[in-house]
Amino acid sequence: MKFSCKKEDICAAIGNVSKAVSVKSTITALEGIRIKLSYTVLELTGYDLELGIRSTIEAVSEDCGEFVVNARLFSEITRKMSDEILTFETDEMLNIRITGAVTEYCISAMSAEEYPDLPEVSDEHRFLVPQDQLKSMINQTAHAVSLNENKPVMTGALFDITEDGNFNMVTSDGYRLALRTEHIDTAEVHRFVVPARTLSEVSRLLKEDAKAPCGIYNNFKHIVFELGEITVFSRLLEGDFHNYRASIPPDKRTEVIVRTRELVNCLERCALLINEKNKAPVRCVFENGTVKVSCKTGIGSISDTIPVDLSGDAVTIGFNNKFMLDALRASECDKLRIHLSGGNRVVKIIPPEGDSFVFLVMPVDLKY
Amino acid sequence: MKFSCKKEDICAAIGNVSKAVSVKSTITALEGIRIKLSYTVLELTGYDLELGIRSTIEAVSEDCGEFVVNARLFSEITRKMSDEILTFETDEMLNIRITGAVTEYCISAMSAEEYPDLPEVSDEHRFLVPQDQLKSMINQTAHAVSLNENKPVMTGALFDITEDGNFNMVTSDGYRLALRTEHIDTAEVHRFVVPARTLSEVSRLLKEDAKAPCGIYNNFKHIVFELGEITVFSRLLEGDFHNYRASIPPDKRTEVIVRTRELVNCLERCALLINEKNKAPVRCVFENGTVKVSCKTGIGSISDTIPVDLSGDAVTIGFNNKFMLDALRASECDKLRIHLSGGNRVVKIIPPEGDSFVFLVMPVDLKY
Repeated sequence: MKFSCKKEDICAAIGNVSKAVSVKSTITALEGIRIKLSYTVLELTGYDLELGIRSTIEAVSEDCGEFVVNARLFSEITRKMSDEILTFETDEMLNIRITGAVTEYCISAMSAEEYPDLPEVSDEHRFLVPQDQLKSMINQTAHAVSLNENKPVMTGALFDITEDGNFNMVTSDGYRLALRTEHIDTAEVHRFVVPARTLSEVSRLLKEDAKAPCGIYNNFKHIVFELGEITVFSRLLEGDFHNYRASIPPDKRTEVIVRTRELVNCLERCALLINEKNKAPVRCVFENGTVKVSCKTGIGSISDTIPVDLSGDAVTIGFNNKFMLDALRASECDKLRIHLSGGNRVVKIIPPEGDSFVFLVMPVDLKY
Repeated sequence: MKFSCKKEDICAAIGNVSKAVSVKSTITALEGIRIKLSYTVLELTGYDLELGIRSTIEAVSEDCGEFVVNARLFSEITRKMSDEILTFETDEMLNIRITGAVTEYCISAMSAEEYPDLPEVSDEHRFLVPQDQLKSMINQTAHAVSLNENKPVMTGALFDITEDGNFNMVTSDGYRLALRTEHIDTAEVHRFVVPARTLSEVSRLLKEDAKAPCGIYNNFKHIVFELGEITVFSRLLEGDFHNYRASIPPDKRTEVIVRTRELVNCLERCALLINEKNKAPVRCVFENGTVKVSCKTGIGSISDTIPVDLSGDAVTIGFNNKFMLDALRASECDKLRIHLSGGNRVVKIIPPEGDSFVFLVMPVDLKY
């Protein structure tokens, strides 16, 4: 079996599929990339039984066949070759010879027999989301994913596609919630939960400026994301996702408009005094066109003031500094609206205009 | 005690002295930076009893005094303040209040009583080296420093200033040697060994483009480097340094001129097949205007060829790939001369012209 391809193409494909390769597995083949050749089509696959990534590139060949090769070594070798076209040749002992103009590597491959097949999923109920939009949806909800493995379904993001064509992506760890909504062109209702790790890999593969659509389909056990030559397969999470609609407060007693960067800077200054041993909520007093932020731990104390646009009642509220920082950083907005309903009610963060996202942060009791 | 200074100045000074602060010490004060105020002069010091760095900046004050403050926290707080001028104020309980326009931190300091004094060294026998030159000397010799603590004197660099005004900086770990020479303006003979860690910190503080001189003086136990407002103090290493002159071969049987980048690329490709478990020397055959490089380990094999200018006998030689790579990377030259005297004799690497450095690498027996 012999084929040639562009170094640039194979290096990119290896980079794309490597993230789904097992670092350590009882099935040695899963620590490798499967290379499958069908004449001029070369398919590379990484799959750890949870997540699979497949990428296809062009090759020059008159052969068919497949083998598995150690992902790390194969990636390093192809990257270090100095030639534009690389030639790969396997013998019956599964040794691969990788050659350029003068450099020649010879390494061992594994048989592809042990390599598991990717799940089969029918693309009957497929819907499309622009790549840049999907990337933004994932990035804006990633912060509120639960890390608690006791309730696995909450370690993913709910994809809730409703009858009116709204695609809601939702994450929540019980102390905070992130909801991002986009309108899409589908009449079907879908509801399933995608593991956070899958979404983080999909986000990495999505291009920020690509309006090209990403095709999404599922069979209730698995989901497939189609991104041009790259296809991502993932298990879905089972279980009942938190009823997110009930936790979003419908009204507010105070509305605050704040410059995101100013509040982030202020909370980052508070963060210096907070660590595992020295915990304390950040105290915010919203009144008279300012928010007074303060915090006191075993390390020291800080007080700071920033101007805001405020309408409604004055509010004193405490919250977990990291949760608020995560939400502000995920907002992708220069300004934000913060809705408050009192010192013991959930904080609601929304864009200055529209309703593309809602972030909720639970308040924390202030002891002083 | 109260003073104000530019945020930029104090942040730079904290960054400079922090590298000499103990990460963990039985003397808690050594985990901090000493701040010493004499009216308009603010002196910051980090000192872990081996290495001390002192930096001086301007302040606005009518006070004198000193305190010690946790290096990491102080560094983070000053960096995060958003104001150009910062004001520091201590009370009798050694609380420091750090204020800008609206932000106010309050943290605890420690008394400076426990803080040890830096060594006293007379600057009678002081000599000068341009900063850029000293940086280059340190960078070119760092790779050959011994990591073996059994012979501590070899874990530093010998400063050998001879009667003819040559400043030789020498490092060796027994398998390789680096010698860098510059002519300086002194009639005095000096010979002492500076710890590698000190030199790495001095290199960090030296500016690549600064012709301004660095003053160097010592008292046989300690050395002092003066770099403008920054002064570095360090213990010297005791013991007999390797007699480096005897190990440099005076002649050669083969001279090779090679493009550094090409040989580095080639050896980096070999490096992919070598690790702790899979060791093997790199085999080089110098003949007929080329060097054929090959290597074979449990991971796989490689063969590669690069063109060279060769005069003299053909040579087949093996060496430790990392040692050769370190030397080539430290050369700072586009081309290099390699002098060989046979397959079992030390490899000598020198610049294409002149004799500013000599790197030696011992050969390794080839089993095939």
